[in-house]
Amino acid sequence: MTEPTHRVGANTDMSWNAWGDPAQATSLPESVRGLVGEVLGAPLRPSPGVEAEELVLPPCALPDAARTALESVLGAEHVRTDDGARVLHTGGKSTPDLLRRRAGDVEAAPDAVLLPADHAEVEAVLRACAEHAVAVVPFGGGTSVVGGVEPLRGRFGALVALDLRRLDRLVDVDDVARTATLQAGLRTPRAEELLAAHGLTLGHQPQSYEYATIGGYAATRSSGQSSAGYGRFEAMVLSLRVATPSGTLDLGRSPGSAAGPDLRQLLLGSEGTLGVITEVTLRVRPRPAEQLDEAWSFPDFATGTAALRAVAQSGVRPTLVRLSDETETFVNSALSGEEAVPGCLAVIAHEGEAGQVAALRELTAATLRAAGGTELGTEPVAHWRHSRYSGPYLRDALLGAGVLAETLETATTWSNLPKLRQAVTEALTGTLTTDGKPPVVNCHISHVYPEGASLYFTVVAAAGDDPLARWLRAKRSAGDAIAACGATISHHHAVGADHLPWMEAEIGGLGLEVLRAVKGVLDPTGILNPGKLIPERP
Amino acid sequence: MTEPTHRVGANTDMSWNAWGDPAQATSLPESVRGLVGEVLGAPLRPSPGVEAEELVLPPCALPDAARTALESVLGAEHVRTDDGARVLHTGGKSTPDLLRRRAGDVEAAPDAVLLPADHAEVEAVLRACAEHAVAVVPFGGGTSVVGGVEPLRGRFGALVALDLRRLDRLVDVDDVARTATLQAGLRTPRAEELLAAHGLTLGHQPQSYEYATIGGYAATRSSGQSSAGYGRFEAMVLSLRVATPSGTLDLGRSPGSAAGPDLRQLLLGSEGTLGVITEVTLRVRPRPAEQLDEAWSFPDFATGTAALRAVAQSGVRPTLVRLSDETETFVNSALSGEEAVPGCLAVIAHEGEAGQVAALRELTAATLRAAGGTELGTEPVAHWRHSRYSGPYLRDALLGAGVLAETLETATTWSNLPKLRQAVTEALTGTLTTDGKPPVVNCHISHVYPEGASLYFTVVAAAGDDPLARWLRAKRSAGDAIAACGATISHHHAVGADHLPWMEAEIGGLGLEVLRAVKGVLDPTGILNPGKLIPERP
Repeated sequence: MTEPTHRVGANTDMSWNAWGDPAQATSLPESVRGLVGEVLGAPLRPSPGVEAEELVLPPCALPDAARTALESVLGAEHVRTDDGARVLHTGGKSTPDLLRRRAGDVEAAPDAVLLPADHAEVEAVLRACAEHAVAVVPFGGGTSVVGGVEPLRGRFGALVALDLRRLDRLVDVDDVARTATLQAGLRTPRAEELLAAHGLTLGHQPQSYEYATIGGYAATRSSGQSSAGYGRFEAMVLSLRVATPSGTLDLGRSPGSAAGPDLRQLLLGSEGTLGVITEVTLRVRPRPAEQLDEAWSFPDFATGTAALRAVAQSGVRPTLVRLSDETETFVNSALSGEEAVPGCLAVIAHEGEAGQVAALRELTAATLRAAGGTELGTEPVAHWRHSRYSGPYLRDALLGAGVLAETLETATTWSNLPKLRQAVTEALTGTLTTDGKPPVVNCHISHVYPEGASLYFTVVAAAGDDPLARWLRAKRSAGDAIAACGATISHHHAVGADHLPWMEAEIGGLGLEVLRAVKGVLDPTGILNPGKLIPERP
Repeated sequence: MTEPTHRVGANTDMSWNAWGDPAQATSLPESVRGLVGEVLGAPLRPSPGVEAEELVLPPCALPDAARTALESVLGAEHVRTDDGARVLHTGGKSTPDLLRRRAGDVEAAPDAVLLPADHAEVEAVLRACAEHAVAVVPFGGGTSVVGGVEPLRGRFGALVALDLRRLDRLVDVDDVARTATLQAGLRTPRAEELLAAHGLTLGHQPQSYEYATIGGYAATRSSGQSSAGYGRFEAMVLSLRVATPSGTLDLGRSPGSAAGPDLRQLLLGSEGTLGVITEVTLRVRPRPAEQLDEAWSFPDFATGTAALRAVAQSGVRPTLVRLSDETETFVNSALSGEEAVPGCLAVIAHEGEAGQVAALRELTAATLRAAGGTELGTEPVAHWRHSRYSGPYLRDALLGAGVLAETLETATTWSNLPKLRQAVTEALTGTLTTDGKPPVVNCHISHVYPEGASLYFTVVAAAGDDPLARWLRAKRSAGDAIAACGATISHHHAVGADHLPWMEAEIGGLGLEVLRAVKGVLDPTGILNPGKLIPERP
């Protein structure tokens, strides 16, 4: 096949077999190469992966009648069945996804990629797919790391990816209420560009920032690095519009309401299994007049954690709150070539109105000082800001050097956090130690609440003969440890296909029946994202 | 019948035909009597209502088999069929409720009042009621003002009130995460007493504070007067336990989660139609070390509203934010006998840590000053705090003096607020003007969000010959105005039976089908609170 060059408008595609912009792909820096080889006790061996030209896709299985129906809705040019488009929609960006594609496995490729222009076309597509028994995988940025956009056919003979990139408008801005209505297919940088013209910002900055979309954030309950100040994505949502095979849902009438259950929170996090979110009205803010960054050092993770808790439970919430454990602090220092930070590094930022930020920063500083923190100035924050979207590129370089690298995350209460961290670390170490050499397991807190926090783990391990099977074993063990601790299986990566085994622990058998009943109403033929979020009845 | 004296433990009952403690009932103060007579242009005429001794209840319709089953679950002493218990569970505390009961209408009285001791008994009761086709009205404090505890039988021949007062324990406190697990039947003062022993507070203070229960707050998405600082009730909920005829739901694993839809938000606000909430784990805080109150005056409601918006959109959130319009400010001054406050009165408070409160208060004061506010000191706040739970007693005095008095509330975005206020005021004035004399319509903002605020209306009008029919016309007109403005039919009073006509405007026909499907799973025989929240299919 030819190299995929599937571009629409400003939406440059990511690499088919790696994260992000192909131009930014790097080989492993020498410093990392030495460090990793030494720590894992194994020499690195290049693992280049299959070239795009070598890929062989299965033939398009879309029945003619379905194709005709879809073309009549979208126009033939928006029903793409070329190899380039299909390969680019063959799953997301987890390490298992990338290992499969690097091995040339594109067997699951969707039969077609649909490019609707607006809500009405999305709804018409869903009706046509329901009628013709075609499975639909809604597709935003394609950044899922939990199998959320994996083309799983379930009981259907054909499957399409529903790419929302043409829904890319800022529909409305309300300067008084400070809300903006954005279409689902907008990637964050473009959304921020459109909002900046009004002096506004969304403030949502997950690591997937450059590629992830507004609709994807809503469908997966995303959380950005500035969640302490701006809130989780679902907390920013005033209203949303959802196309389903059974019609349209318009949810959200007011900033606060007691008019029954909050159905927004049933669609937020529904991951394309209950409907396709096409439009979201969001809280926005003026672009901050001031931003004050400060790095802090703590002697150890327990002291740093207690300090973050004190901040999260105080009357002042910084915009950004982050704490790396000892290992991550050491590794990041080594990667940056900067002077090593002792103990654990915390990154704190306050954004806001000119007259308020300095006073709020001072109150937070007093809390952190009292909790045993030492100020380190702004330099480490600048370094973190500079490199904060580059982690996935480093992972590709590691995979290319024959090293296994992946992340996973969870959250729990402050009181349960130490036990959870230990249990997950032990699960990962227990399953990934080879010849007495344990994996490198970094951990950080990047989202804080008054009652608890997230834990984000980065794992680097020897790849072994079958890195995919090796990681799946480790992931299963870590997931079981998370469930056994009573923590959530995902703080912000979502469920997708990969977290299905733990959904019953999360909401119980009766909770699953509730989701199935809702799906029965909104998607009676079951075409929407089969095999995701809601496990089949045993 | 005999005067109801249905007491269990510390739970003193409210009057059967009025709000609250019978000992606190007052006749209308002379100052108010004169004011009201003058404004409404009609002499007040005593309207004493029927005495308890005159009430005639329908015979208990509970079939023997059902009674036997329930007694075997609860013990005979916890299946109450005496008139006293039945009268006390004949609906809530809306003006229509009180007008009906004052007229001696207790035709709807439940056949029995059940008093389960714990979650397992609640679940067993629900199974028995499902088996014997007995409708169940979950009953907490009985403070609903929207018909939420009205004994509506639907298609069932018998109905029981499920009174949760024996579920009155503080189950657990987590000092590190600052959460507490409380049973559903706890009234707020008792819950606060139990928490105070740990140095903690919930901070939830709606006007129904003295009688409303933890479970009721959760079931109705309550919002307290300090919602600016403590948040809406549903935002305080970490997890909840719900008994349903189909089994138990345990929901909520983490302070933040992306593990699918947030099913907590489907049960919060379900108003006893999907299950019975028996236990809630809530965010709590240390009892504040410091509290700084300040009253402010604004020249008019528009200026005051803009000032509140500036505060709500700033980086500092006071604990309490409240603004009365010109009429309410005038009326409250007249009632208090204090010197009249010019324009519109705002009440602001900051609570929190000793080292932070003064600084935060200063930042808020700067915002309010810049927006045209004038500081009035603490005196008006002290007066407001002193009388803040007494409004419902005043309403009883007005009803007893033959005057119609009621409240209603809604919420919308800041940009839509002036239009909404005007439309509701016009609807109430249009339907309640008599002989050229309009009703008194007070309005205040008592809950603010970055994107908008609540509007709370208090109406005092001539009663006319049929005050119940008169109010229902006004309520219908106001509700239609709210829906036409795109606002929510309730910010914190919930749906109950009274707001059913506007639920389709609120969530759409497809949203209603979603709720019906969820009910089909959790309450397949439909025994739970018939006629509430979810309208029948047309």
